[in-house]
Amino acid sequence: MAKDVEDIVAGVLGGDRRAASRLMRLVDDHEEASIDLLGRLYPHTGRALVVGVAGSPGCGKSTIIDGLLAELRGQGRKVGVVAIDPSSALTGGAILGDRIRMQRHSLDEGVFIRSLATRGAQGGLSRSTLDVCRVMDAMGMDVVVVETVGIGQDEVDIRMAANVTVVVLSPDTGDAIQIMKAGVMEIADVFVVNKMDKDGGDAVVQELRLMLAATPERAGTPVVEMEARTGRGARELAAALGAFVEPPGRIREKRRLEIRRRAGEAFTAWFEERSRESIERTIDRIQDGAETPYDIVRRIKGSMEGWNL
Amino acid sequence: MAKDVEDIVAGVLGGDRRAASRLMRLVDDHEEASIDLLGRLYPHTGRALVVGVAGSPGCGKSTIIDGLLAELRGQGRKVGVVAIDPSSALTGGAILGDRIRMQRHSLDEGVFIRSLATRGAQGGLSRSTLDVCRVMDAMGMDVVVVETVGIGQDEVDIRMAANVTVVVLSPDTGDAIQIMKAGVMEIADVFVVNKMDKDGGDAVVQELRLMLAATPERAGTPVVEMEARTGRGARELAAALGAFVEPPGRIREKRRLEIRRRAGEAFTAWFEERSRESIERTIDRIQDGAETPYDIVRRIKGSMEGWNL
Repeated sequence: MAKDVEDIVAGVLGGDRRAASRLMRLVDDHEEASIDLLGRLYPHTGRALVVGVAGSPGCGKSTIIDGLLAELRGQGRKVGVVAIDPSSALTGGAILGDRIRMQRHSLDEGVFIRSLATRGAQGGLSRSTLDVCRVMDAMGMDVVVVETVGIGQDEVDIRMAANVTVVVLSPDTGDAIQIMKAGVMEIADVFVVNKMDKDGGDAVVQELRLMLAATPERAGTPVVEMEARTGRGARELAAALGAFVEPPGRIREKRRLEIRRRAGEAFTAWFEERSRESIERTIDRIQDGAETPYDIVRRIKGSMEGWNL
Repeated sequence: MAKDVEDIVAGVLGGDRRAASRLMRLVDDHEEASIDLLGRLYPHTGRALVVGVAGSPGCGKSTIIDGLLAELRGQGRKVGVVAIDPSSALTGGAILGDRIRMQRHSLDEGVFIRSLATRGAQGGLSRSTLDVCRVMDAMGMDVVVVETVGIGQDEVDIRMAANVTVVVLSPDTGDAIQIMKAGVMEIADVFVVNKMDKDGGDAVVQELRLMLAATPERAGTPVVEMEARTGRGARELAAALGAFVEPPGRIREKRRLEIRRRAGEAFTAWFEERSRESIERTIDRIQDGAETPYDIVRRIKGSMEGWNL
């Protein structure tokens, strides 16, 4: 494995896709080895601009990213795409993984597309987003675009990984504004209103501007009007992304999120391994009525009293 | 507080809405006290049928639940609704919380509706779903319906809480089948194809039946055709839910999920409290280049070696 490690590290740093894919698979499978590899690559990351793109299914995220890709490639920049939206047309969704893609970019050496699959009960959709972005960063991508529906856990994943986050609205997903209000709004550094050719586009822009104007700290947030199908607005979006400056406090906050996340994952892995039998005994006790699931909380808190990290 | 505890326990068991709401707020705020209260109520739960309803925004979940409510109320059953879909029209979404609702049922004593809000970075959308369902169970609801988009973390929450899960498709959310393939499919005990009056309804039913027929263990899954706007299919849905028998192994699996979840939450709470300073020092070391976020994983695993639960 030692030689393998050197090969993968050298390969990724040299921009080799095969090496990068191999490492991403290790990350996906939560292989122990990926931790060492990612640690080795870490000092070579931080150069790429990581762009989060969130919005409900049907708002046109894939088409927008497709246009953004064309624009950035025209500027000679290398672009990675990570999709954690199971409905992504760009990657064929999480089920089809990396095999099937609707890509005019698939033969372009300057583009690397990767989708992340659902990982069972505990995992949620996107546990490895941040690590996959870092691999793309280390292999020399100038921009890494993360595509996600952006609700719930995804929101945290974007926040941890992205330098700038785009939230997409469109006039035909009626629930857009509704969903946006519920948390996704706050993570937007740039808004896109897509499908401006459809009825209601102007109304969405207006509603959005009113909402932003009502919040002093959000008043300057750019709103890019797009008609992604025809390419209209892609240049403006690229410009807005380039002009965005990540607030200083956010980098520290991202590290805080990451450390907490990694601590939690380390605990879960340990708990899974160590307490298999004890879990089964606890279930028996609950079924016998001798204990409730809430006693467990107390028990765990009790046994952590003496711990030290 | 001791008298408060007794009051809340007695109130909830007596079906008092005010007591139930108070406890749900404690649950939402992750108040220590809620653990004791939930432990007290636990022996009085397990009687209600908890129904999960999942489907992408726009598929008509709220209308379906509205129809199901009317049907179940007609049968004289008391029904609770928990919405963890931020776009829910039934609860006005997570932002509006319990204040604004589009409910013809709001004056009906036999209906109790509650929406769960997003709870910051670590929480995701729905950490308290299971506990809120148990409160509704303890207060005497015969059926508790949980409404959710059902992707990512939500999926786990439904699995933990529900006795039977309905997945809704409709011909006009083009991504429906796509999303369903990615994980939500597996949690369906009953399928609903809604908006059968629209073009493409029959095609969705056919595609679904083919998909189910191709998987031997799913071959018997009921598919209910609905036109929820007009009430068509609500009776059939209620019948399919009533006929469903929860597989024996699933109850044990649900407890396993719950124990793991509670252990993880207890760890997170402890870590938050104990390691505030140590996290800040770690961030400094990362920023100085003296450590990477991946060293932390190793460090935590190392210090857990001697732990015992």
